[in-house]
Amino acid sequence: MRIGLDVMGGDDVPKIPLLGAKAFCAEYPDVHLVLYGQMDVMEAGLKELGPMPANTSMVHCPQVIGMDEHPAIAIKQKPDSTIAVGLADVRKGKLDAFASAGNTGAVTAGSVLILELLEGLHRPTIGGIYPNNGTYSLLIDCGANTDSKPEYLLEFAYIGQAYMKAVYGMAKPRVGLLNIGHEHTKGNNLTREAYKLLNDHKDHLNFVGNVEGWDINRQNADVFVCDGFTGNVLTKMIESYYEYLSATLPAGLDLEFLNFERVGGLPLLGVKGNVMIGHGSSTPFALQNMLRRTRELVESRLLQKLPGELSGLTNTAV
Amino acid sequence: MRIGLDVMGGDDVPKIPLLGAKAFCAEYPDVHLVLYGQMDVMEAGLKELGPMPANTSMVHCPQVIGMDEHPAIAIKQKPDSTIAVGLADVRKGKLDAFASAGNTGAVTAGSVLILELLEGLHRPTIGGIYPNNGTYSLLIDCGANTDSKPEYLLEFAYIGQAYMKAVYGMAKPRVGLLNIGHEHTKGNNLTREAYKLLNDHKDHLNFVGNVEGWDINRQNADVFVCDGFTGNVLTKMIESYYEYLSATLPAGLDLEFLNFERVGGLPLLGVKGNVMIGHGSSTPFALQNMLRRTRELVESRLLQKLPGELSGLTNTAV
Repeated sequence: MRIGLDVMGGDDVPKIPLLGAKAFCAEYPDVHLVLYGQMDVMEAGLKELGPMPANTSMVHCPQVIGMDEHPAIAIKQKPDSTIAVGLADVRKGKLDAFASAGNTGAVTAGSVLILELLEGLHRPTIGGIYPNNGTYSLLIDCGANTDSKPEYLLEFAYIGQAYMKAVYGMAKPRVGLLNIGHEHTKGNNLTREAYKLLNDHKDHLNFVGNVEGWDINRQNADVFVCDGFTGNVLTKMIESYYEYLSATLPAGLDLEFLNFERVGGLPLLGVKGNVMIGHGSSTPFALQNMLRRTRELVESRLLQKLPGELSGLTNTAV
Repeated sequence: MRIGLDVMGGDDVPKIPLLGAKAFCAEYPDVHLVLYGQMDVMEAGLKELGPMPANTSMVHCPQVIGMDEHPAIAIKQKPDSTIAVGLADVRKGKLDAFASAGNTGAVTAGSVLILELLEGLHRPTIGGIYPNNGTYSLLIDCGANTDSKPEYLLEFAYIGQAYMKAVYGMAKPRVGLLNIGHEHTKGNNLTREAYKLLNDHKDHLNFVGNVEGWDINRQNADVFVCDGFTGNVLTKMIESYYEYLSATLPAGLDLEFLNFERVGGLPLLGVKGNVMIGHGSSTPFALQNMLRRTRELVESRLLQKLPGELSGLTNTAV
């Protein structure tokens, strides 16, 4: 397996990506990690941090996309950036996956432009992995899209269901529509229409109906379908509890189950390649976990399974 | 002060409202509490629970609006319901405030129809009180509106600012726009437009810009402005942490600061009267606290201050 890592993506580069990469490579000697970055920056970093394990190589990318650059413009204007080159190498089959803690919008735009969407999909989506009581839930979309349409939410449901089956081995993940009430008449214009679509696709989706904010911690679904705005705000709120409660509750308490650095990365789904996204504020531990999630994603063969898993999308006459 | 309570509103009536009312009345002998309900139901409840303190009276309302009835239709078809009669008594000046743990949509629709909106406003809004590290934040709107327009969010900002000044004595509450990134270009169609409006009203609003999901627990604003869909999902998610962590963390830990029954009620704001809303699943303790919040709302004189606080809305030439 060959995984590419954006060494220029994040708040403290190349140090944090290199530290995360070192830990990951030592853990998985069978994985080959390709570092994408400006050669002089990477070499200066390695001089300080010591050499990388043998299962790594480096690719020089002269350009870097900044955290605040306009995603689509930056991807087009910087074909020699770490993000553009890494994604192109996925497309060419040189990599099984690419991971970046850089500009999320640029990774998303680049994935659509360079890898292209899977057949039958309108949009990519970000899956928010939520570890909870020894199992996992998925909040999807977590921010790949700012404004969504009902048919996007239907696609997120199919993708999320396929993810939970492939990556976590769930036989029949429960798909819930995140909403403001359980009754099918409840919701905003988007969720009321999405409810109808999801309900019409019950032959292919294990749709359990509307779920509410408190149903996430109660684990009343495995896949929580929502628009990317709601999912983004929620995910960041959820992530903040580790910091908040660590400062509020008595010291010495084990709150590691709330620590989202243990997740590390969220998959960008719906494109013809494996892509993993991390927070700009990732620590080395978070970076290492982003790479672990990337490895799991490749191992799950979700990408190979998705065309079959999405067949209900186009085969359902409504 | 005279407060009206809907004794037919909630999942276990009249028992829970009556128990909450008894505790509240014993605590505040100077407040007169008026119970709205079907007389036979109230009398049967009091027979079981024992008599109410002296500072109460009862109003017979033959009709009841169910939790799942269509709000606007129910309010029009049931003028003798507890919600319609209670709100009419606020309008007539017989009550200083009305509180209900019944059908939230019906209370909202009834408040607009019977009490009417304050001048200059398009919509009512629900303020989500969030106790955090010894102080309070407000999430507004928490679900009075399913689909919002940018000008609604501007109004929520003015109302939220006025609430924090009047009820919590904040001199200059920080108003943040809940969004998916800090940069002013970030967001969905709604928040990008709302940002411009809020920014144009900086003479009247202490607008601190965009804030994200993790800024809520970090208290990077006092008022978090959002659409009612996002606010509703978030509030229920936040509320679920008490239950979730109580079951997950070691027993004996003091998690009362996460217990939203201590809030008990959320104000419905923007109408010409004081209205407080509680969860259908309220316990007697939550009901008692809903009445405490109602008393605070009346004491704060927010309603008398709001026309002045909203003057910037119409006086700002943009």
